[in-house]
Amino acid sequence: MSFERLAVLGVGLIGGSFALAARQRGLLTSVVAVARSPQTRETALRRGIADEVTADPAEAVREADLVYLAAPVRASGDLLARIAPAVRPDCLVTDAGSTKAGIVALARELLAGRCTFIGGHPMAGSDQAGPEAATADLFEGRTYLLTPTPDTPLTELERLRDLVIALGARAVLVDAEQHDRLVAATSHLPHLVAAALCNSLRELSGRAGDIRPFTGTGVRDATRIAKGPPEVWRDILIENHEHLSQALEAFTREVTRCLEAMRTGDAGALEEFLTGARDFRRGLDET
Amino acid sequence: MSFERLAVLGVGLIGGSFALAARQRGLLTSVVAVARSPQTRETALRRGIADEVTADPAEAVREADLVYLAAPVRASGDLLARIAPAVRPDCLVTDAGSTKAGIVALARELLAGRCTFIGGHPMAGSDQAGPEAATADLFEGRTYLLTPTPDTPLTELERLRDLVIALGARAVLVDAEQHDRLVAATSHLPHLVAAALCNSLRELSGRAGDIRPFTGTGVRDATRIAKGPPEVWRDILIENHEHLSQALEAFTREVTRCLEAMRTGDAGALEEFLTGARDFRRGLDET
Repeated sequence: MSFERLAVLGVGLIGGSFALAARQRGLLTSVVAVARSPQTRETALRRGIADEVTADPAEAVREADLVYLAAPVRASGDLLARIAPAVRPDCLVTDAGSTKAGIVALARELLAGRCTFIGGHPMAGSDQAGPEAATADLFEGRTYLLTPTPDTPLTELERLRDLVIALGARAVLVDAEQHDRLVAATSHLPHLVAAALCNSLRELSGRAGDIRPFTGTGVRDATRIAKGPPEVWRDILIENHEHLSQALEAFTREVTRCLEAMRTGDAGALEEFLTGARDFRRGLDET
Repeated sequence: MSFERLAVLGVGLIGGSFALAARQRGLLTSVVAVARSPQTRETALRRGIADEVTADPAEAVREADLVYLAAPVRASGDLLARIAPAVRPDCLVTDAGSTKAGIVALARELLAGRCTFIGGHPMAGSDQAGPEAATADLFEGRTYLLTPTPDTPLTELERLRDLVIALGARAVLVDAEQHDRLVAATSHLPHLVAAALCNSLRELSGRAGDIRPFTGTGVRDATRIAKGPPEVWRDILIENHEHLSQALEAFTREVTRCLEAMRTGDAGALEEFLTGARDFRRGLDET
């Protein structure tokens, strides 16, 4: 048994799946889930995500030796402040947010001398959200990023790493700042772009009528991530806006390069642009 | 039997699938395929795409009552000039290019008084290319856009429409100029954006090392179309660059709106941006 009692704070797709996955593998003795909404608490019990539910984060963490923060990024920060006075010294606190430098710094400030915090980011998701969509196999075969600091006790890091591996994930260690810089480009920029595509199509639909007959599988794939929960992505975009602005500059340079080649009819430059993109994308499949 | 003899010019995914689909449904008596590469001609015979093959477009169309142009857009224009003197008066010529105004105008110029031309654009594709990827069911359940002009004989339009319906597609009629304006936004812009995303990630990979652990299903979906054939997309981007520039302006306005909200931490504006995108994207699923 890796841990005794898990408190999961925020029972959406990720928090719910984490609890389900750990319980079904017998890695925990008990789970208490924290949610503000009575309906979410009811769902957590009905779906076997938790044994107990409460609306009070401090009460939930009091007996827990593992705390999993899975609310939208800024709400997880608020939760951290509320649980800090109540955590046990042997408790390991981790989170599942898509940005890491902010929460790691906040945890250092709020939990120093109280217990261990290690940031986490499972590269798993779905276009479905909420506890109804949670599944015990969400992390299988996925990368699970962990962001220890130089102060992180190695025994604690090992316990958490072993746990995510036991859920079927590949654990990868990365510095929190480096993490935020990389996912700005690989995750947050694609989301921003997909949402901007949808909004520009929406504008066109308003002017031109139903454009669905003109949408094939390409644009549907390209914009699928825009179905993600707005309240989660709102926090991510604000929290990581500096790295994201830089990634957006690189993207804009590429768009401009393509636009110039189109306007001047430079077939060679366009083919180079498209071939480089295709070859890079093919490389992503070779994992 | 809708048509007797089909000449398919350009045997890639689309041309190959069209011939396979029509043959397997018994809608044709014979098929001749035109390809420059001996290997493609061999594949066309081996896979049952065609009964006969040749490298000479004019020879191929001489006995055909249906000609299907499925080369990259600008090559289809060249082919049109080569076959014009050889077509039978009762021949129906169509194409499968992703831009329509240019080829429709060219056909009016080259084929006027010789035979009927009707532009077409199947909204079907795959991230696989070439005759090896061709399948008889590629058009099933897909939209097949047709772009008749006021001069198009209705009996000919009906024959072509019935044929694409017989292949399992939904036929939709649209003006060629309107088509190009709409697909600039729904197809060409997403392609440009996906390729630009790949190229900016490639740049980051060069600087930061392997970024694959940081790429989840989201970015893979968002960039899948960038695997499409560069020589096909090069022509599309050049041919439709005016409409595409306009679509890109709408997209850039949306990106700028999001960037401003991020920078000022305007959570309300961001949530509106993301919610509008999500709701529009959900609407695309309700077909």
